[in-house]
Amino acid sequence: MTTPTDLPTPTVEDRDALATALRRHLDGPFGDVRDHVRALDADAFGAAPARLPVAEHRARVTDLLARVAEQPYAAAGFPERQGGTARYGEAVAAFEMLGHTDLSLFVKAGVQWGLFGGAVSLLGTSRHDDLVPRIVSGELQGCFAMTETGHGSDVHSLRTTATYDGSTDELVVHTPDATARKDYIGNAAQDGRVAAVFAQLVVDGESRGVHCVLVPIGDDEGAAAHGVTIEDCGPKQGLDGVDNGRLAFEHVRVPRTNLLGRHGDITDDGRYESPIDNPGRRFFTMLGTLVRGRISVAGGAGAAARSALAVTTTYAASRRQFAAPGADHETTVLDYRTYQRRLMPRIATAYALQVAQHTLVSAMDDVLAGRAGSEQDQRQLETRAAGIKVLTTRHATDTIQACRELCGGAGYLWANRLAALKNDTDIFTTFEGDNTVLLQLVAKSLLADYTATFGDLDTLGIVRFGARLAAGTVLERTAARGIAQRLLDAAPGRDEDDTLGARSTQLRLLRERESHLLDGLARRLRAATAPGADAYGIVNATQDHLVDAGTAHVERLVAESFAASVESCADPAARAVLDRVCDLHLLSTIEAHKAWYLEHDRLSPARTKALTALVNEVCAELRPYAATLVDGFGIPEGLLTTEMSGTA
Amino acid sequence: MTTPTDLPTPTVEDRDALATALRRHLDGPFGDVRDHVRALDADAFGAAPARLPVAEHRARVTDLLARVAEQPYAAAGFPERQGGTARYGEAVAAFEMLGHTDLSLFVKAGVQWGLFGGAVSLLGTSRHDDLVPRIVSGELQGCFAMTETGHGSDVHSLRTTATYDGSTDELVVHTPDATARKDYIGNAAQDGRVAAVFAQLVVDGESRGVHCVLVPIGDDEGAAAHGVTIEDCGPKQGLDGVDNGRLAFEHVRVPRTNLLGRHGDITDDGRYESPIDNPGRRFFTMLGTLVRGRISVAGGAGAAARSALAVTTTYAASRRQFAAPGADHETTVLDYRTYQRRLMPRIATAYALQVAQHTLVSAMDDVLAGRAGSEQDQRQLETRAAGIKVLTTRHATDTIQACRELCGGAGYLWANRLAALKNDTDIFTTFEGDNTVLLQLVAKSLLADYTATFGDLDTLGIVRFGARLAAGTVLERTAARGIAQRLLDAAPGRDEDDTLGARSTQLRLLRERESHLLDGLARRLRAATAPGADAYGIVNATQDHLVDAGTAHVERLVAESFAASVESCADPAARAVLDRVCDLHLLSTIEAHKAWYLEHDRLSPARTKALTALVNEVCAELRPYAATLVDGFGIPEGLLTTEMSGTA
Repeated sequence: MTTPTDLPTPTVEDRDALATALRRHLDGPFGDVRDHVRALDADAFGAAPARLPVAEHRARVTDLLARVAEQPYAAAGFPERQGGTARYGEAVAAFEMLGHTDLSLFVKAGVQWGLFGGAVSLLGTSRHDDLVPRIVSGELQGCFAMTETGHGSDVHSLRTTATYDGSTDELVVHTPDATARKDYIGNAAQDGRVAAVFAQLVVDGESRGVHCVLVPIGDDEGAAAHGVTIEDCGPKQGLDGVDNGRLAFEHVRVPRTNLLGRHGDITDDGRYESPIDNPGRRFFTMLGTLVRGRISVAGGAGAAARSALAVTTTYAASRRQFAAPGADHETTVLDYRTYQRRLMPRIATAYALQVAQHTLVSAMDDVLAGRAGSEQDQRQLETRAAGIKVLTTRHATDTIQACRELCGGAGYLWANRLAALKNDTDIFTTFEGDNTVLLQLVAKSLLADYTATFGDLDTLGIVRFGARLAAGTVLERTAARGIAQRLLDAAPGRDEDDTLGARSTQLRLLRERESHLLDGLARRLRAATAPGADAYGIVNATQDHLVDAGTAHVERLVAESFAASVESCADPAARAVLDRVCDLHLLSTIEAHKAWYLEHDRLSPARTKALTALVNEVCAELRPYAATLVDGFGIPEGLLTTEMSGTA
Repeated sequence: MTTPTDLPTPTVEDRDALATALRRHLDGPFGDVRDHVRALDADAFGAAPARLPVAEHRARVTDLLARVAEQPYAAAGFPERQGGTARYGEAVAAFEMLGHTDLSLFVKAGVQWGLFGGAVSLLGTSRHDDLVPRIVSGELQGCFAMTETGHGSDVHSLRTTATYDGSTDELVVHTPDATARKDYIGNAAQDGRVAAVFAQLVVDGESRGVHCVLVPIGDDEGAAAHGVTIEDCGPKQGLDGVDNGRLAFEHVRVPRTNLLGRHGDITDDGRYESPIDNPGRRFFTMLGTLVRGRISVAGGAGAAARSALAVTTTYAASRRQFAAPGADHETTVLDYRTYQRRLMPRIATAYALQVAQHTLVSAMDDVLAGRAGSEQDQRQLETRAAGIKVLTTRHATDTIQACRELCGGAGYLWANRLAALKNDTDIFTTFEGDNTVLLQLVAKSLLADYTATFGDLDTLGIVRFGARLAAGTVLERTAARGIAQRLLDAAPGRDEDDTLGARSTQLRLLRERESHLLDGLARRLRAATAPGADAYGIVNATQDHLVDAGTAHVERLVAESFAASVESCADPAARAVLDRVCDLHLLSTIEAHKAWYLEHDRLSPARTKALTALVNEVCAELRPYAATLVDGFGIPEGLLTTEMSGTA
């Protein structure tokens, strides 16, 4: 609360102007492309009117994908030499907007253009450039075959092999047993014709680590290619419109040139060569292609959570239950404290995460366009992407669940959208990187400062993934950094007198939690390197500490980027409201860790009680703005039609 | 940890014997009826092999319901004078076991026999007794039409009317407008022929409050009765096998004798009479019929959570990911701390809630069989039922979600059960009483001790429901009470020296939290009765305090009943394990409220840190017993077949 006055009660005209200003703020650098997507036909792109049978749903999504292919968004995600327009940030922002439509379409588009297209574009060599325009247009549909039944998080240990046969100049792709089949692969069961298959490359009898090979898997008549077995994963909890499948390869032969060989290739004379000597580094460089997938998943999760919040807020602002004594009308449920407490902080967090997403997408744009091309930039981007993905997908699962409960029986009806939102996004917390594993990677990447002291964490070999990320620094640079630092410096220091309402205090508390957790973590892990130490046991015992430290880091990043963005909001009315929204997000984040602050003597009991009272107060203060705040999400008209909004 | 020695690592033979002993303990007083249900044909009663189209799923459940009707369970829920066998506890325990089958069957059975049958049996007069055998056999199918589109939690304000017309000796049932239609009514869209309709009874122009009237709604050819409109609620998030519908009545005439008039009737000469003068008390007495519904929902939720835990533990004990340095094999995921932390305390809580459910069902049996017939007994039962329903349904939603995430992509496939378990039980937290509303009622009922001091809470009129429950006392008597008191008395007092491992300390901490919250609540609410006070504002501001107090009360009850049951376990090996399971449940419950204990100076930071370390330790100690603990759930073989268990 940098402005200590109370917010005025908004008039109707205020509300419209305010919603527009809030939307502009949330649109960030991507207003034009968002508006472009908003103009798409809501009748066509909206959720299916009922839960469709799987075959029908898949057909609908296949059709919708073709309509998306007519738009400029897919081409934006590829460089000009491959026929794209190299507007990477806009591509991701446009696909995020698809997160307000049928989420099966969102995921299917992500598989086709983000994962499959991304693999060809970023792992392929110039000999694969010609494929890209066919992928962009949707003429060539493919899938991204990484996960195996037996290996998800530990992709380093994938067991599919691609063995070079010099006698025919071919690669032989093989699935050694059932646990090595490619599993849960989107686009594999029906529409994909080519798979980008991750496999252990063997050249001259020597294993070269995981590489990616293009393998044709079937034809347009639905026949599987020779030696390829395609199995349908069958019904899922959600995302019925996505044809997930399992792929097994029985010594399938493809030309050597199908190897996506940018980071490791086989020459015309059959020798393996790579610009990266270290096999581990090579592998993690390749995995870098995943980063856009994670960023996109975060975007879609954020969009789904906003959809749920919009549906629920509309309901809550009109639903009445129980009359106050002497009142003519029953009370609107949004006026109840227990209701506000469950809804308002989640709206605030949705704002914070949307802003953090922009920061992330802009950083990705810089890296992909080569404006920030160092290995450190790339690794920082990966750390941040992993962290934001975790926070946003967790927020989506938690928020959509809360919204379902806040809407009671109405929330349980398919017509009211929440059921599909819940089921479609539930997998987001564990695909594109399991959240619990990712948080540990984030924390490990932050420990780079300490590695000089106690040796390379990666030598512990617990989570091999970790090495890829162990490069950032605790204090990374971001565009928002300057403003956040200034806000922080406004603090009078660690004094019980500074109020929790001060932005500087809020930011300082979040930063203190992060540094304290990292310091403690470094100390504990150092013990693992002592001679004779049970390194495995020690590292296992710190897992929850790693998760907490990773969480604290990303929460601090999100808070700083949101606080900085509020400072830079030019519209005074919007800024006043955003300032309170920022208070609510920061205070409720701190409140969620109340036990930690008390346990570590960073807040006294009196202060944590004041904190809870303050969160209640800001919830009530923002209540008249609830409907306007969700209007500010700028979700296209027509995509949120429900029975509840109809009868409200 | 009343026995301080470590648990031995179990041998294979130990495990089988232990699982049997644990199952016996969990079966409690209902072992025979549980074994009877376990012997049902798992192929027929198991989950559908795939997600069926709605019509097919409904047909399957209708068939299964007819097969359940051949069993003795339904008759057990009715008194002998109505052709039943009056074994109420066994009826509820048997239906709880149906919670391991298709949950649509569980809910449909609950609607037919629990809600519809319960209304006829408990609200009807002797003139309705003949209907009961036809309901038990399933020949007469009905529904329970209470909730309206506009009123769910506030049933006192239902707007459907039943007006007595003396000229024809009929009741005229009418829906004044769309928000008064009966909504989400199970069995209404397809199978129900008669509805037990809750409506404002008007006799001689005078409103007599909400009463229940039997109204025929349609015939076997699917035609709606004259004046009745039946609408299908359409697809839902889950429970596809239950035909939920909406009912509207256009001046529908039924004979006067269709009034279920036990608590308020119309005489042959057209006068209203009731054995209960106070209309509020009369209404809440009628609502007492809901209690069996809530108890059954808790049972089904507990069963579903145990199914999810069993599926997930089997997976976690065989799934391997990442190798420890120098190890031959990759590590079982259940050996990771983050995994144990998410799974083991939930197994412990499942044990605690199952035991609490027995205590509750036994108390219900006493009340329904007339062995405990006072109004205070009835109200205590209602308070306890509301509280256990909240804790168990919340546990189910939380646990099944955690299990889905712990199983990653495999958890997302329909074949692995978790998707259906999630979707089918999600509504449990808000139907049969919204959890947030129920917790406030629980707390209000506990404030009875204070009402003499500051006036009747109900005069505040905030939640009219509250009055029904405002009768219990803070220290209720239970069978377990004696043992719990003895355990508690073993404490050396409030001394920092007593360890968190001591059962007495654990129980004392939970009891202190409850009393402190109730004391504070009473103080705050007293202010609402001061002259000129904004009573509404004050009560609204205490909502979260009410929720916390209600939670603390039920958590204490559950803890004490579990602790007492462990003490009474005769098998030494089972008792040693249960003792640790009890530690884990109690410690993790206390840990969840760590912030509260610190804020209120009940635990020092050093002690809360020790608490977390202890929870970790007990998780690890119980890890070798994880598979045996879920075997102890005694879930019928064949009901848990999944693709995961097949490939494990």
